[in-house]
Amino acid sequence: MLAKVTTPSPPVPSTPTAAADRAHVFHSWSAQAQISPAEITRARGSHFWTADGTRYLDFSSQLVNVNIGYQHPRLVAAIQEQAEKLLTVSPAFANESRSEAARLIAELAPGDLDAVFFTNGGAEATENAMRMARLHTGRHKVLTTYRSYHGATAGAIAATGDPRRWGSEPSIPGIVHFWGPYLYRSAFHASTEAEECERALQHLRDTIMVEGPATIAAIMLETVVGTNGVLVPPDGYLEGVRRICDEHGIVFIADEVMAGFGRCGEWFAVDRWDVTPDLICFAKGVNSGYVPLGGVVISAAIAATFADRPYPGGLTYSGHPLACASAVASIGIFRDEGILEHVRGVEETVLRPGLEAIAERHPCVGEVRGVGFMYAVELVRSRETREPMVPFNASGAAAAPMNEFAAACRKGGLWPFVHFNRTHVVPPCTTTADEMRQGLEILDSALTVADAHVTD
Amino acid sequence: MLAKVTTPSPPVPSTPTAAADRAHVFHSWSAQAQISPAEITRARGSHFWTADGTRYLDFSSQLVNVNIGYQHPRLVAAIQEQAEKLLTVSPAFANESRSEAARLIAELAPGDLDAVFFTNGGAEATENAMRMARLHTGRHKVLTTYRSYHGATAGAIAATGDPRRWGSEPSIPGIVHFWGPYLYRSAFHASTEAEECERALQHLRDTIMVEGPATIAAIMLETVVGTNGVLVPPDGYLEGVRRICDEHGIVFIADEVMAGFGRCGEWFAVDRWDVTPDLICFAKGVNSGYVPLGGVVISAAIAATFADRPYPGGLTYSGHPLACASAVASIGIFRDEGILEHVRGVEETVLRPGLEAIAERHPCVGEVRGVGFMYAVELVRSRETREPMVPFNASGAAAAPMNEFAAACRKGGLWPFVHFNRTHVVPPCTTTADEMRQGLEILDSALTVADAHVTD
Ligand SMILES: Cc1ncc(COP(=O)(O)O)c(C=O)c1O
Ligand SMILES: Cc1ncc(COP(=O)(O)O)c(C=O)c1O
Repeated sequence: MLAKVTTPSPPVPSTPTAAADRAHVFHSWSAQAQISPAEITRARGSHFWTADGTRYLDFSSQLVNVNIGYQHPRLVAAIQEQAEKLLTVSPAFANESRSEAARLIAELAPGDLDAVFFTNGGAEATENAMRMARLHTGRHKVLTTYRSYHGATAGAIAATGDPRRWGSEPSIPGIVHFWGPYLYRSAFHASTEAEECERALQHLRDTIMVEGPATIAAIMLETVVGTNGVLVPPDGYLEGVRRICDEHGIVFIADEVMAGFGRCGEWFAVDRWDVTPDLICFAKGVNSGYVPLGGVVISAAIAATFADRPYPGGLTYSGHPLACASAVASIGIFRDEGILEHVRGVEETVLRPGLEAIAERHPCVGEVRGVGFMYAVELVRSRETREPMVPFNASGAAAAPMNEFAAACRKGGLWPFVHFNRTHVVPPCTTTADEMRQGLEILDSALTVADAHVTD
Repeated sequence: MLAKVTTPSPPVPSTPTAAADRAHVFHSWSAQAQISPAEITRARGSHFWTADGTRYLDFSSQLVNVNIGYQHPRLVAAIQEQAEKLLTVSPAFANESRSEAARLIAELAPGDLDAVFFTNGGAEATENAMRMARLHTGRHKVLTTYRSYHGATAGAIAATGDPRRWGSEPSIPGIVHFWGPYLYRSAFHASTEAEECERALQHLRDTIMVEGPATIAAIMLETVVGTNGVLVPPDGYLEGVRRICDEHGIVFIADEVMAGFGRCGEWFAVDRWDVTPDLICFAKGVNSGYVPLGGVVISAAIAATFADRPYPGGLTYSGHPLACASAVASIGIFRDEGILEHVRGVEETVLRPGLEAIAERHPCVGEVRGVGFMYAVELVRSRETREPMVPFNASGAAAAPMNEFAAACRKGGLWPFVHFNRTHVVPPCTTTADEMRQGLEILDSALTVADAHVTD
């Protein structure tokens, strides 16, 4: 994630951990001299505590990964048990927890997506999905959208359609960015969901036409775009992409690193639209990041391409037994505790109505959108012009209104997820209705700070 | 790693785990229909057990990562304890185990390499090292050697100088491969270590001259080349590379993903030659792969480049608390148990003399070379012509002599590491002198199988 809050002269570290952090930890996406990271010492359920004893209700799930909540006792126990049993085994062997994790994920995945290639995280998942698609089709180009994030290794960052790519350019060749549906800021001048859907599909068809269908290996989409705005595809869009892919022999890759495993109230977000992609990338929610894990679920046809021809990719920790055991346990807990049903219920009764009420009260709220426990509140200077509260990719002083809003949330005991001119409501999927209400209340009053920046 | 043994019709899986593996686990570097992975059910110290109850003495350390041995009780306990405490925290925060791991690694690293960027594994480490070097220098090209492996994401596989790259080409631009020192198969027609060193440095200087020094961001080397042959640089080579880099403002990246943390009897293999690179990539041995972890140790000058300018890279699990806690505990155990001293002692008294004796006895052994617990035995058809026992990148029938040798080792109760025409002796760093002797005995008799393929 991009560093959200930058302060010119950070305070002196107050604990040995904070001091060692500033001396020795190189933080991602940050100017190292301009940060003073808060220290997390403890976490449980929907809350974490910083070193000064403050407790925060978490509306961020860290990086939208702690879907099961912090330190779930049964998941902790499963990890401890596997640690006792067998921690590491190379990808060349078979192993119980690896087989069981693959079997369960295949069982959950739609259609004939029955084989799982495990990785350590999301970037390695999208990298390998793109490699599989290229080798399966014998074509090279991959189409992805602007306003997307797919990870930060050379292939994944090239596929990424947001400013995080800029620092790694010139990028690898063969990636083409197009525009996805986003009605509130339509690239197609649409005014209804149906129109946005139709025009976005037309734009994709046109892009394929001019790029050359026979040169395109894959279209990779975040099923619901995450960090770049919680852009929920209009009904019909994913079905349309599926049809277009079929028409041209293009592999459909769904990047569900953020959207999968409960976040959208489904095992896989594509389930919401009954669409079966050829490859699904997962990570984060699969085990809530308790142990690094990601992977790709693979269709029978693509797996068959590598039946007698070696797949040229791998990593030392592919199918790590500890990580796989935590996925097995996590899926079991999701089932036993009915977490998907919980998400849908609290979304319906608390989250959506709560955010809609907030939107009515605050002139700074341009739009509220989302699905499951994955919502965005888009802040604007003016509802009429939809001018964003802060410019695209703003940092420092230009981002002040959002930083003030975030500070107000934190002061109220809520840890928000803030990106550009939006705050995302992405709490653990185990967040109770009461906690959700409390969080929305804090959000509600913090938004008053942002209202002050509204210009009309 | 490349699949070493391929059988046309694999046996029917014998356990539910094996059956689920064949149905659902997509294995790296493999033709999925041609493998029947052995199932590991248990492991301890220097041994692991397969599902049929067979115990193997491990001369492979899985993928040369289990440096501390299997299921080290103190390391298991540390992981269980951290699991109880706090499993996951995003990279944006400070956290005790992350700070402590960074502090310890900085303490062990040479020179002013005092900041640590954590990743999940080796590929993400080399990817980020290359990105840092590019942004630090404002140049684009990275020089790496043929006969090298740096990981399998788009940037890392482009840097790789072995056949594993072929399946991912066309590769990213900006990587130039040159030849490193390897006296036994000298690219420079040298006949002594000193001559090989001098000529390899001349070749590097010439390559830089024709590529343009001002276009080169980094030279990335495996300090001791791992999978591609345990190529130990002659004395003077790394010092020479350091001087050349200084002369042209080129960043020197040491990839110690395999060579670091005990494997060469040092914390970092560069310590052996007292050379300080600008960036060191690590993974594997840092915590023996008990939890996925890797990273880059960064010089003060490169860290300073990102003091006020955001570093454009990251990953969700950078500095994962569970992984970092396991690194902290592992370093403590290495110190308390004197594992580096143990490696040097057993190398000196058992491993090196044992392999030298084996080399004398077996006409199939062309050369034995290595350092610490990282040795290679190079098998040849003829000592005179040095024709490799199997061709470069051989598989299937062409690899039969090596497959027979490997089968003989396994029959004897030893799990070997086999690559092309070599077997590497890369056991856990905690392997006792007695275990080492036992393993060498099995190796000794298995080599008789290979002797039969000698042609003169
Ligand atoms: C949709 C999506 N894809 C890929 C990634 C990359 O995952 P990782 O950070 O584990 O490499 C992310 C991370 O935020 C993501 O949200
Ligand atoms: C020297 C070296 N660099 C990088 C890597 C890649 O590490 P990983 O497999 O963890 O991505 C390896 C793996 O074998 C390696 O040996």
